[in-house]
Amino acid sequence: MEIIELPVNRIDIKKGEKTEMKEWVVSEKKYQILVNKTEVALVSASPSMVKELAVGYVVGGGVLHLEDITGVEVGETTVNVETEKPVDVIVRHIRSSDCSSHWVSEMVAKEGIIESTLNVPATVIVKAVSRLQSDTETWRKTHAVHSAGLFTKDGNICGLVEDVSRHNAFDKVVGRALLDGYDLSCTFVAVSGRITQDMVVKAGNVGIPIIASRSTVIEPAVTVASALGVTVIGYVRGGHLVVFAHPERVDL
Amino acid sequence: MEIIELPVNRIDIKKGEKTEMKEWVVSEKKYQILVNKTEVALVSASPSMVKELAVGYVVGGGVLHLEDITGVEVGETTVNVETEKPVDVIVRHIRSSDCSSHWVSEMVAKEGIIESTLNVPATVIVKAVSRLQSDTETWRKTHAVHSAGLFTKDGNICGLVEDVSRHNAFDKVVGRALLDGYDLSCTFVAVSGRITQDMVVKAGNVGIPIIASRSTVIEPAVTVASALGVTVIGYVRGGHLVVFAHPERVDL
Repeated sequence: MEIIELPVNRIDIKKGEKTEMKEWVVSEKKYQILVNKTEVALVSASPSMVKELAVGYVVGGGVLHLEDITGVEVGETTVNVETEKPVDVIVRHIRSSDCSSHWVSEMVAKEGIIESTLNVPATVIVKAVSRLQSDTETWRKTHAVHSAGLFTKDGNICGLVEDVSRHNAFDKVVGRALLDGYDLSCTFVAVSGRITQDMVVKAGNVGIPIIASRSTVIEPAVTVASALGVTVIGYVRGGHLVVFAHPERVDL
Repeated sequence: MEIIELPVNRIDIKKGEKTEMKEWVVSEKKYQILVNKTEVALVSASPSMVKELAVGYVVGGGVLHLEDITGVEVGETTVNVETEKPVDVIVRHIRSSDCSSHWVSEMVAKEGIIESTLNVPATVIVKAVSRLQSDTETWRKTHAVHSAGLFTKDGNICGLVEDVSRHNAFDKVVGRALLDGYDLSCTFVAVSGRITQDMVVKAGNVGIPIIASRSTVIEPAVTVASALGVTVIGYVRGGHLVVFAHPERVDL
């Protein structure tokens, strides 16, 4: 993760002081995600794990199955996913609360309903979500990144990623797990920001049965989660949590 | 602002309780922003102040000057800005940390350098930023919205808007002020989320000399702010703040 130290002026009103000091900020870089050289997304991301970003984005978005990917070529500002399958990519970007692309949202039912029987104790979910802050160095230094973590039902961490965008963090942690051959139906994902429709759609497409956040949920995410069979949990803080859809997977 | 009450399950681990209750969530709706019937953006927004959203977006983005707008027509899912001026709109959407569109970022220097002599006391900025939470009802109910407020140097509020996207909130509060004929060079804007490059560009294009946030700043925003002459302030909390660019406008 690229972080930069900049000179700043800190004003402390009570002390009546203006101090010259330094503060950490994050950088970001624009990447074009392509499938067989056709652009499917243009994203601004933290400059790391670009291969994972593209794989998570393309498979999560329902454009390709992992097994249809024959190669991933990372350039300076591009990442091209190769396949021998014919793909019909319809791209229409949207600026939304969730910073995501409209075409993803239009592929809701691509992989059908999740029927995973995974059960996770509420205590494991609370601990996992707290690790999004305690285990993330860039967040502590800059307070300018989101994070996403993938966990087993015992709370073991499969991956933890920080990025300027919570959607990139989600795509990267999922992309890494796909490339490493994880069975995602046995995992749950914890995210630092609001849960959106597109996260639910992507979870559905890759078979992740539970999404949890210390923040809350946007209404369309709940509707989609109810239909797709994805468990959606918000307000995971201290000793409690709120289940917005499919509570049967959360044990007391 | 459209908010919806949904049935949820609240799990309290310490008490060992699973309670059925209700929780407020926000809705959102997709809007196409057009200039003379040509799409310049597709945004997912809270369904209110759509006219202001379009005006803020188009003028802030440097596509049109306010005085060149001859009409704004709001439809069910569209808002068309009319002009008799020839416009050459190049649109390339990007999904970024700032949920914004690339074309905006490419218009950085459109309106030149801000030379406003506005000075604001640090105490006024701290109080303004705190009002983003204390004066916003939807945030208190849902914790799922951002807000943007426009203030005079005495701390009087010119406008305060909540939206699922912090960029929409920014566009709406600016759009409303433009339509009401405010002299924006005498105001500053306070936002609830991270300050991004596009917010700085838009502030530059409409002449707002100061942006302040209780959150922090992404590095490209500092670079652009330094070049455009926009004062950028982060970490406005309690009795202190951090100035990342052009500190000369903040009085102790």
